[in-house]
Parts: sequence; C-alpha cells; structure tokens
Amino acid sequence: MSDLRVAVLGVGLMGADHVARITSRISGARVAVVNDYVAEKAEEIAAGVPGCRAIADPLDAIADADVDAVVLATPGSTHEKQLLACLEHGKPVMCEKPLTTDVETSLEVVRREAELGRRLIQVGFMRRFDDEYQHLKALLDSGGLGRPLVLHCTHRNPAVPHGFGSAMVVRDSLVHEVDVARFLLDEEIASIQIIKPAPNPSGPQGLADPQIAILRTVSGRHVDVELFVHTGVGYEVRTEVVGEKGSAMIGLDVGLVRRNAPGTWGGQITPGFRERFGRAYDTEIQRWVDAVRDGSNIDGPTAWDGYAAAAVCEAGVESLNSGEAVIVDLVARESIPGA
Amino acid sequence: MSDLRVAVLGVGLMGADHVARITSRISGARVAVVNDYVAEKAEEIAAGVPGCRAIADPLDAIADADVDAVVLATPGSTHEKQLLACLEHGKPVMCEKPLTTDVETSLEVVRREAELGRRLIQVGFMRRFDDEYQHLKALLDSGGLGRPLVLHCTHRNPAVPHGFGSAMVVRDSLVHEVDVARFLLDEEIASIQIIKPAPNPSGPQGLADPQIAILRTVSGRHVDVELFVHTGVGYEVRTEVVGEKGSAMIGLDVGLVRRNAPGTWGGQITPGFRERFGRAYDTEIQRWVDAVRDGSNIDGPTAWDGYAAAAVCEAGVESLNSGEAVIVDLVARESIPGA
Amino acid sequence: MSDLRVAVLGVGLMGADHVARITSRISGARVAVVNDYVAEKAEEIAAGVPGCRAIADPLDAIADADVDAVVLATPGSTHEKQLLACLEHGKPVMCEKPLTTDVETSLEVVRREAELGRRLIQVGFMRRFDDEYQHLKALLDSGGLGRPLVLHCTHRNPAVPHGFGSAMVVRDSLVHEVDVARFLLDEEIASIQIIKPAPNPSGPQGLADPQIAILRTVSGRHVDVELFVHTGVGYEVRTEVVGEKGSAMIGLDVGLVRRNAPGTWGGQITPGFRERFGRAYDTEIQRWVDAVRDGSNIDGPTAWDGYAAAAVCEAGVESLNSGEAVIVDLVARESIPGA
Amino acid sequence: MSDLRVAVLGVGLMGADHVARITSRISGARVAVVNDYVAEKAEEIAAGVPGCRAIADPLDAIADADVDAVVLATPGSTHEKQLLACLEHGKPVMCEKPLTTDVETSLEVVRREAELGRRLIQVGFMRRFDDEYQHLKALLDSGGLGRPLVLHCTHRNPAVPHGFGSAMVVRDSLVHEVDVARFLLDEEIASIQIIKPAPNPSGPQGLADPQIAILRTVSGRHVDVELFVHTGVGYEVRTEVVGEKGSAMIGLDVGLVRRNAPGTWGGQITPGFRERFGRAYDTEIQRWVDAVRDGSNIDGPTAWDGYAAAAVCEAGVESLNSGEAVIVDLVARESIPGA
Repeated sequence: MSDLRVAVLGVGLMGADHVARITSRISGARVAVVNDYVAEKAEEIAAGVPGCRAIADPLDAIADADVDAVVLATPGSTHEKQLLACLEHGKPVMCEKPLTTDVETSLEVVRREAELGRRLIQVGFMRRFDDEYQHLKALLDSGGLGRPLVLHCTHRNPAVPHGFGSAMVVRDSLVHEVDVARFLLDEEIASIQIIKPAPNPSGPQGLADPQIAILRTVSGRHVDVELFVHTGVGYEVRTEVVGEKGSAMIGLDVGLVRRNAPGTWGGQITPGFRERFGRAYDTEIQRWVDAVRDGSNIDGPTAWDGYAAAAVCEAGVESLNSGEAVIVDLVARESIPGA
Repeated sequence: MSDLRVAVLGVGLMGADHVARITSRISGARVAVVNDYVAEKAEEIAAGVPGCRAIADPLDAIADADVDAVVLATPGSTHEKQLLACLEHGKPVMCEKPLTTDVETSLEVVRREAELGRRLIQVGFMRRFDDEYQHLKALLDSGGLGRPLVLHCTHRNPAVPHGFGSAMVVRDSLVHEVDVARFLLDEEIASIQIIKPAPNPSGPQGLADPQIAILRTVSGRHVDVELFVHTGVGYEVRTEVVGEKGSAMIGLDVGLVRRNAPGTWGGQITPGFRERFGRAYDTEIQRWVDAVRDGSNIDGPTAWDGYAAAAVCEAGVESLNSGEAVIVDLVARESIPGA
Repeated sequence: MSDLRVAVLGVGLMGADHVARITSRISGARVAVVNDYVAEKAEEIAAGVPGCRAIADPLDAIADADVDAVVLATPGSTHEKQLLACLEHGKPVMCEKPLTTDVETSLEVVRREAELGRRLIQVGFMRRFDDEYQHLKALLDSGGLGRPLVLHCTHRNPAVPHGFGSAMVVRDSLVHEVDVARFLLDEEIASIQIIKPAPNPSGPQGLADPQIAILRTVSGRHVDVELFVHTGVGYEVRTEVVGEKGSAMIGLDVGLVRRNAPGTWGGQITPGFRERFGRAYDTEIQRWVDAVRDGSNIDGPTAWDGYAAAAVCEAGVESLNSGEAVIVDLVARESIPGA
Repeated sequence: MSDLRVAVLGVGLMGADHVARITSRISGARVAVVNDYVAEKAEEIAAGVPGCRAIADPLDAIADADVDAVVLATPGSTHEKQLLACLEHGKPVMCEKPLTTDVETSLEVVRREAELGRRLIQVGFMRRFDDEYQHLKALLDSGGLGRPLVLHCTHRNPAVPHGFGSAMVVRDSLVHEVDVARFLLDEEIASIQIIKPAPNPSGPQGLADPQIAILRTVSGRHVDVELFVHTGVGYEVRTEVVGEKGSAMIGLDVGLVRRNAPGTWGGQITPGFRERFGRAYDTEIQRWVDAVRDGSNIDGPTAWDGYAAAAVCEAGVESLNSGEAVIVDLVARESIPGA
C-alpha cells in the first residue's frame, strides 16, 4: 500500500514537529501538503520535505485531491471551520486540542460527525499513548486497584510565555488532566471548582498561579489537580490513583540517578512536554496513520472526548471567576446516535 | 540531678507505650505513678515497673508529692479537668491530643495557662519530632523552596476499629495534618471544607471514607489532605510542600527494596503509626523530660497549638455535615498575653 | 529520495523483529529481501511484507541488484562469509553480535574492511542507542563525574533455554557489558577473570551461574559484572559508574509504582530485553538506515568494536575454564590503517 | 534495679559519643568512670557528667569496685591487655572494633574468654543493630530470597584524614563489610583478594583508593566490596544480596526528596557514619546494657566475631601487597569449647 498523504495545517512549534515526525519517524505516511497563515513559513518547510507543496488556503489544502488525511495544528479558533471541511470532504483528521474553543461549536462538530455515520475526527490527547499512562490504565482495567476512588494530578510547567492568562491555565493545561481523568475513570465530569490560592510571588503579575481544580465525576468520585505553570523548576506531570485495593503513581521522573559532591543525590527533571511525551506523539501519529490506512480512521480520543473536555474547561473558567463549584452540563451522549 | 518522677494517666495502648518508653528508652525520667479508670490495669502495670505505684484517682495522682510531671493519655473528655489540675499544682504536663474535645474548653485552658504566666502544657503532636518533618521544616526555614505556596498531605490507615465514625476522621486523623500545616507554614488556618467523595465500597457501612479536606490559611495558602482510613493497605503519611522555588516530599516509605520472582520489585509499607513515628515519640518524651528538668517545662507544641487544631477540626466537622467551606474563627492570640 | 531496500538475513526471533521494525516503525527503509536457512520461514515472512521476496541463498541475497543494504541476523558461525560478501559487493551491513565467533576471523573482517578504505560494517550493540546509556555517556563526557574509575554492571535474565552453557554466559551475555565498558570508558580491556561462585541450586544442572567477571582496562580501571542468567525474576540490567567526582546509576526500573494490600509497594521488573531495549533497537536501525542513505554507512559500533568484544570474551572463556586472570591481547589498532 | 555503672576507656570522638549516649539517651546505665591517655581530657569529661570520676590508669578503671561494666574505645593496640583485664575481673566489656590488632592476639582473647566458661566480650559491629540490616537479615532468615548466593557491598567515605594508609582501608573500612558478610551469610570467609584499580587522581597521594575486595566464603559464595574512602561525596553504605529467589538492596539513602530549579530532583547523601548509624549505636549500647544487667552479658557480636574479622582483614592486607588471592586460615571453632 502506498504511503498516506498528509496535509499538516499550521506549522508553528507543534505543527513543525508533526512534519518532522511524519517525515522521519513515522512509517507509512508522508507530508504531501503544508499550510500556515504565514505563507513563507509553509513555503520554507515544504522546501525541506521531498514531494511536499505549500498551499495558501487551509480549506484548499483539505480539499486537495492529493491529500488523504489532515493534521490540524492551527489556532483553536480556526478548528471549527476546518473540521467541518474535513467532514465534508470525508477526510480523516487528527486535531490538536482543543476540538474547538467553546462548548457549543464542539458539540456541533460532534453532531455533524455523528450524522455522517462514520468517525473521522481524532483529538490530540497524546497522554493516552504514553507508556506510563497505558500501564496505569492497564492496572486499573485489570482490577488491580479495585474501584478507583480518588485521583490526584499534578501539572507543573517551568514557565509560561508573556501574556499567558489565568483562564489559559484552565483551557490549555487543565484540559489534559480532564482527559486523563475521563480516560482513567471512564466516566464524565459532573462539576468543577477552581481554587485560587495566594499566587506565587515570583510568577507573572496578575496570573492566578498556582490553581487547584476540584472535579467531581458523575458517580461522585473526586479528582484534584494542582496546576502550577510558572514554577521555575521543570515539567512535572504526576498522577496518583487511589483505589479500593491500593494506589498507584506515575510520573516520578526517575532515570539516571547521580550521587555528587557535596553530598547530594538525584536526577534531572524533564525539561518540557516534548521530552516527556515525545514518544507518545510518535505513537499517536503512527497509530492514527495506521488507522486511516486501514479505514478505521481513528485510534484514539474522539470528537466527543474533545467536546467533553471543552465543556469541563468552560465550567472551569466560570469557577475561576466565581470561586464557586460549577455544574458541568453535557448533553446526553445517547441523544446523538453515532457520537 | 535525680530522675524526673512522672505520673502517666491512662494506660491504654498509648499510655502503656509511654510507660515502657520512659522506663526503658528515656534517660532522666522514671514512671513513679500510674492511673487508669480501670484500676486493675493500672495496678498490673505498676507491678512491672520498679518504684511505681498505682493511684486510683487521676487528680490525686496529679497532686501527689512524689510526682514531678504528668503525662496525659486519658480519654479526651477528661483532659480539661486534668489539665486545670496540673496548672493548679504547677506541674508540667505532656498532653496527648486533643487538648480538650471542644474549642471553648481548649481556649479556656490556653487562657488559664497564660494567666499563670508560665508554660506548663505541651501537646502530643509528635510529628514535629520526626526526622523527616524536621528535615522538611529545616529546608523551608533555610529558604530552600522560597515561600511555601501549597501543601499536599496524604493520611492513610490500613483500617479503623468498629464504631469509628465520619467525624472521627476529622477529629483524630485530620488533626495531625492540621498541626503539620500550621507547623510547616507558620500561620493559622482561616477556613476548611470537607469533601465527601463516593465512599470506598469495601469500607465500613456509613463511614464517609475517603474524605478530602481543603484548608486555606490566613494569608491565602492552600492545603489539601486526603484522609482515607480504611484502605486495607498500610499506614501512609506523605507531605509535599510546593514553594516558590521548588517542591519537596517526605513519606515515600523507601527502605529495603526487594526484587522478586515473578518480576516485581518493591518494599514494605509501614504497618502503623508506631513503626512510623515510634522514634518521634521517644524524642518527644525525651525532649519534654529534659525541658521539665531544666525548668523550661515544654519543648514542643503549646496549649495554643492544641486550641488552634481543635478549632480547625470543629469547623471541619461542621463542613463534613454541610459540605460548605467553614470559616475558622480563632480569638486574637495577642488578646491573651502569655499564650 | 527513495526508500532504502534492505535484505534481512536470518528471520528467527531477532531477524523477524527487524523485519517488523523496518516495515512499520522505521522511516526511509523497506524490507526488499528476506532469507533464512529454513526456506519456508523466509517465504512466509516475505508473503506478509508488500514488495518483499525470499531468496534462498544468503550470498545471492547480498548480491541482489535490488538490495541496497543488509541486516545480518543469521547464526554467528555464518557471519564471516556473509560479512566478506557484503564488503565485496560494497553493501553496508548491520551485523547482530557477534561480529564472528572467534578472534582471528573478527580481526580478518576488520582488516578487510580497513583495506577497502571505507566503513560498511556496523555491529548491533544496541545499548549505545538506549536513552539511559546515552544520558550516562553524556554525563561522563560532560565531566560531571570527573574521571570514571570503577564500573559495576549487573546482567540478570529470568531464565535461559535448555542447553545454554557456561561459556554462552560469557559470549552472549557478558559481550554486551564488554561493549558497555568500552563505550563508557573509551578504552580497551586489558585482562579478564571469571569467578565461579557456588551455583544457584535452583538453576540448570551444570551451569556456572551466577558468574562474576572482573575486567581491567589498559589504564588500570576496574569493571565488575555480575552475570546471573537464571534468576527466575526478570530482566535486570544496571550500570553504575563511580568517578572522581561522584557516581551515577542507570537501570533502576522505576516506572509505575503501586501501593497494595497487604502492605507492599513497588513496581514491575522489565520482563525481557525487548521491553527494555525495544526502542533502542528502533533507534539503532533508524540511525543506520539514515547513515546508509546519506552515504556515511554506519552510525554506531564498528567492526573494530565487534573484534575487541570478541577478543575479551574469548579470554573470558579461557578464564572461565582456568579461574585465572587472562590477558586480552589486541593487535595494535594503528597497525590497521582505516580500522 | 540500680543503674549499671560503666567505665568508658578512651574518650576521643567515639568514646565521648558513648559517654553522651549513656548519659542522655540510654536507660539503665550511667557513666561512673572515664579514662583516657590524655588525662586532662578524661578530667574534663568527667566534670560534665554527674557522679563520674576520671581514673588515670585504664587497668585501675577496669578493676574499680564501682565499675560494673566497661566500654573500650581506646586505640586497638591497647585492647588485648584491657580485654584480658576485663576477663580477669569478670567484667562485661563492649569493645569497639578491632578486637585486637592482629590475628594471634585476637585468637588468644577468644581462647581466654572460652576458658572462663562465660561470655563477657561484645564487639562493636553496630551495623547488626541498624534497622535496614535487621530487615535484610530478617528477609534472608524468612527464606524470602531463597539461598543467598552473592553479596555486593559498597563502602564510601567523603574523605579520610591525613596519614590514612592503604592497609587502613582494609583494617578499618573493610572490617565492617567482613562482619556484614559473616552476619548475613552465616558462615566464615575462606579467601580474600584485594584489587587495586588505578587510583583516584583527586585522592591523597600514595593511597590505593578505590580498592575492590573479592571474598569467597567456605561454601563458595561470592562477596565483592567497593571500598572508596576519599570520594568527596558523602557516606554511602549499600548492600545488595542476590539470592536463589530474588535480590534485595539497602542503603539507597532516600528520605526527603526535593525538586528544585533549575530542573533537578533528589536528596541529601548521609554526611557520615554518625548520621547513618547513630541510632544503631544507641540500640547496640542499650541492648548491651540490658544484657549486662540481666546477666547474659552480651547481646551482639562475640569475641569470635572479632577474631574472624581480624583474620580476614589480615589476609586482606597480605593480598593488598601481593595482588593475589589469600586463603583465610581460621582455627576450627570447635577446637575452643565455649567460643
């Protein structure tokens, strides 16, 4: 079978990574088309990939006859239109989170895909492809911890760029933990409360950082998340599941252990998400390529998963502002046949 | 200098431990008198300790001329009267938590000691004497983490006895974490909220277990505590401090590490608080003995610390019932000169 | 550039893995030809790979016009002839260890490649591509430990197949540690002594297991290796470097950590070399493919590395028999220009 | 029962520690007499301990009517005479290692105690009282690892004082590991070989450091020890037992774990033996005091244990000089009834 011809839309940091990944680390696919709202950037990247063209309009890129499938790494605000175009042309699409930037349009995307009667949209929650999360999920599925009761998540970044606001902590950081919770606990989130402790005096002025998110699932299980995006330390993602028969933790960041003068031992903290989850991205894309090639189109989080995460984060932003717990109001999934 | 003659009041599990400790592991003190509401138990224990008498009435034991200092391991409901007797006779007293069973009487004890103009009451929050907590406190005091911002505590027991109710989780388990938070953060707790997730299906019927306590300090710092008292696993006490310049964790329970067929590695979880904190108890009593012998009378948590913990836990029980955050209303410490 | 057309010779466990790897996880290469001394096995595997043929004679496969490069996963005893054929046809070859089965033929291969004036042979010491070994090497190269002084290696397998003899422990297990030592210390091994402790009573009759190898480098540095191939436990490979300014260890096998009833904590031991080094194999092959495509032909251990390891292991087998330390007698590398 | 009156002979670093320990951390004993060859030092220390006298002559101190038992912390060269005096006066003695400074006199001490028909001499191998070693021993005794086959020991000091010679590494450092091996494996050492790798360029001139000791037990089990006394790092003592059914390691030095900018995690290495084994010393002395008070006189390593360790170390020094393996020639224990 010939290689899958992929259009990568948006070639900023993440999109350029995807181009490099598909070109040199992923078997069975090649980048046929790139697009970016900065046309020169797309041209430059296309020039470095054999057989790759830049196309100026993202919708043209989606529609192009030489494109079998699409990777969306464009700004979230453009996702809705681009996803609907993918659905219209029947092209499988791997969409970086968020699905769309608000709950209504996310739900609309879910509905439109469901009406089509086949799945085309996979959402880029790549942690599901990480070895540690997979081992944790396998442990839960095996019943090794009995019923999971409580989830503690830690999400720390060394720093955030200028202009990163308090709501972005919820939308861009918490969103991954929301998916982790839904993935590990296999149920929807019912309510969310964001606690704003006294902020880090060393952090950016005006940023509510750290934040604590308190989630409650439909069946009453508790999830708490420490979100701390300007620690000055490193990238730290830890998850502990506390179950009926024991607990388990991942993310301890143990690899090479040094013992050095003057009397300390330890290792390096993962510097960023690319080091931590780089292989998960590879696996995610490889499995998506394989799924598209065999016609199943997705092998990972669905549009519904993207919608559910959006709904939780939107309620989270509301709680960030009010300080109160906010009910997460999902439509009944069974009301959308095929979702 | 001759040995300190100690009266141990209450010789149940904890009191009998203290008798054994003072008799064979603590230098500079001996148990001169024991008392218990079960007179036979006191007689039996006295018979095993050279030079020790049983005295039937706890107030007589406190007043006894051959008693230099008192250890209270009686039920909390008797503490108020016994503490006031100690103050009256000017006898230093090491009081197992709780100081008293409600906020008003705790505050009254604080006032009466303050009026006396010298400290006689030490409260048995023994974690302050544990090596790991002391290292953590030293790290914070050295500025090694910058300003502490968030505290995550985990408090897990393998099981609780029949009849252990939901409010006891707050009063008997959370109380230690309240003191840890006050000790590490050096400030009072302003509010508390108890979250009741869906309970452990393997736990005792009707017990709210696990519980999550959300504390906020006066300056707005966040403390969360997982309380899970019927895990079936072991005794697990972990504390993580997240600061301006990094984080630190104690309680990882790493000692002997095995690698065994069929392909697992690991160690033993501490079975109970005596194994985990046995040496802290020894240190606590030794330092208290030394303090009494040198006239400073206390070298550890004060009556105010006992009162503050009681106030937080009382608010915690209110939150357990209402589900809402409850303000912790402490009297101004400066309103009690000497407290 | 079109994909590299690879012939995989020998499609047993390891060769079949390489076929799968090149077909679905490696970019820029495809398996064009397979060969095995069991012709049916080769036919069967060829049938499952698009565009792949089975060729019955390994030398024909090497010579085939549609083959750009060769992977040797055949028995070691056939390597010499096949390697020389690769050199003759100027085809880059990735040769699974051992280079050849004795020192003389290994050295002959080194000479013949050196005479050719360009490198074509890479040897399959895949640990050099493993993340942990790379981090350790980088730490050493950065001077972070000062001069490395002592190396402790542990090499444990859960079990060995029937017929695995004492000398195979040296030739098949120790050989990897020999390469690790040469890679990390950047010098040759001068002598080797194999110690045979009282054997594991649960192990196969007649097998000297565990064995302890004591290596000394040319500059006098010490390396010890515990070889224990029938532990019943798991696959455990640990390396500790002790240097002038500190030490470092890899292989601690820490990932998901469980805490379970009745009171134990821990994780899983890696079950085998595929789980431990699977990604290193991918990286090894990908980097070799890239090197062949860009004309540098090798990007990893050279024929000299294969020869040196063979020489050490041959001396090791001599020591296994005699119990004495044996001098490792390498030809002077500068006597073979180009080696 | 009244307190045990102890004479502490030798009040240098170790002896002064024992005085402080018995005075303030050990129950049931007090220091009645101190002695040192620097008379002023003994006077000064006696002045600080209630009821304590300095006696100028060590043999007078042993003979003193107010002395029930003796702690020997004098230089090893004086031990023989002092031990024999203790035996003569029937006084229990806790003797810091070495028993004596050579094998013959050690054996003579063993014989003389055996002739006496009751045990009076305990040797200060305090690791047997350390929690981690006790857990390891308990694991072995429980059969949890099957038959122990191999022992790996690591013994590292941050630095040694000026004048510390190569043979002292064997006599003063290795001696502890010899006792650990004999304690854990419950058998005698049959041969020893000391390997001298290229020395640490940062270490003292002329010191063979690191050294590797290879021990073989009577039944053929293997023990290796890395001795590295001038690491510049910290005090690191690790022991790994590899058994028929698995392995176990102690000494991983994990306590408080920090995560700090710029991206490192870890903890502190134990600075010295007092921090590592301080509690073991307390336990050792407490249990010895209890044993003397109840008439059993010793509760720990015997004179034979001191003799056996001396014999191994003497052979070790011979191997240090020759580089060859040296047979350890113990007299048959059954030839000395009562030993």
